[in-house]
Amino acid sequence: MTILEQLIKGFSRLPGVGKKSASRIVYFLLKADAEYLNSLSDLIRRLQASVKSCTVCGTYTESDLCSICSDFRRNRELICVVEESRDVQTIESTGEFNGTFHVLGGVISPLDGVGPEDLSIRKLLARISDNSGEVSVKEVIIATNPTIEGDTTALYLVNLLKNSGVLVSRLALGLPVGGDLEYADKLTLSRSLRGRTKIS
Amino acid sequence: MTILEQLIKGFSRLPGVGKKSASRIVYFLLKADAEYLNSLSDLIRRLQASVKSCTVCGTYTESDLCSICSDFRRNRELICVVEESRDVQTIESTGEFNGTFHVLGGVISPLDGVGPEDLSIRKLLARISDNSGEVSVKEVIIATNPTIEGDTTALYLVNLLKNSGVLVSRLALGLPVGGDLEYADKLTLSRSLRGRTKIS
Repeated sequence: MTILEQLIKGFSRLPGVGKKSASRIVYFLLKADAEYLNSLSDLIRRLQASVKSCTVCGTYTESDLCSICSDFRRNRELICVVEESRDVQTIESTGEFNGTFHVLGGVISPLDGVGPEDLSIRKLLARISDNSGEVSVKEVIIATNPTIEGDTTALYLVNLLKNSGVLVSRLALGLPVGGDLEYADKLTLSRSLRGRTKIS
Repeated sequence: MTILEQLIKGFSRLPGVGKKSASRIVYFLLKADAEYLNSLSDLIRRLQASVKSCTVCGTYTESDLCSICSDFRRNRELICVVEESRDVQTIESTGEFNGTFHVLGGVISPLDGVGPEDLSIRKLLARISDNSGEVSVKEVIIATNPTIEGDTTALYLVNLLKNSGVLVSRLALGLPVGGDLEYADKLTLSRSLRGRTKIS
């Protein structure tokens, strides 16, 4: 196989990149400036060695503590529990949340052989029950995805935290902003009805 | 900027990859096996130095002659003229064509400042008028894209080859196979009418 073919094959392993897109990408790279290719190559090579998990929340970081856990302006009484590191970036992009995060590293999924012990749950409990420090956690927001696995994981955490004394909440389910009732699926609509909010 | 952010920025420069896809790709790479990352990094670094243009037809190759030009079973009396190297692969994938290719390296596009002298046209003429060898070209198939620029380039070549004694043809325009009259645009439909083929 030529380098061209090998690279097309390599790129087509990436998520969302099919064989046609991969070939488009490789032909683009052939004409791109060499500096860009070198930097891309270099970054890919260094990626895994440079990125590790934050020792507190588990999100991807390039130092021991992530930028959120090391920021003393963040509200440590509030922990938002997410499935993956990328969810941290998604929630951060709203600019709405000033608490800290906890990355589970997945969801409970018996079909894939993932149980609670495979997730970073013990560490979460340790963060909550650690009353030695000056701040103790007041609220845990469960922000797992609204899927069967995400719901199962949320339920598991709710049961686990029932007697811990912290408030446990979950992200609201309902119509997406800018959406249309006509295109909403039945489940979302019924969740949206059940979770209706008072306006006066 | 962290490596993570730099790499997301780097990937989002690729065609068809937006910021969200780039971030999905980088999070995928973080969990991918290290061997794959090393090979991807290595291939990207070596790409431009390894790939050059075929000295005869101009398509991308890793030796002096491309696999098509060096294959003596190919019909050298037939030259298919395409815009870019990737078009060679596209036509090859049909398995219908047994001639050789000629890559123009672009199309005539006054708006982008590309004139005939910027394309590999002189080389094409040299291939056609070179009667010293045993095979002389009998037909030139113009396979530029059916766009304004592609049509302009085709017209330019037709005029240029008018008195050369070779047959000049163009890819048929019409309805795509599996398409629906209802969804065909007017231009395609009218071209399809004009180019109708006799069936009995």
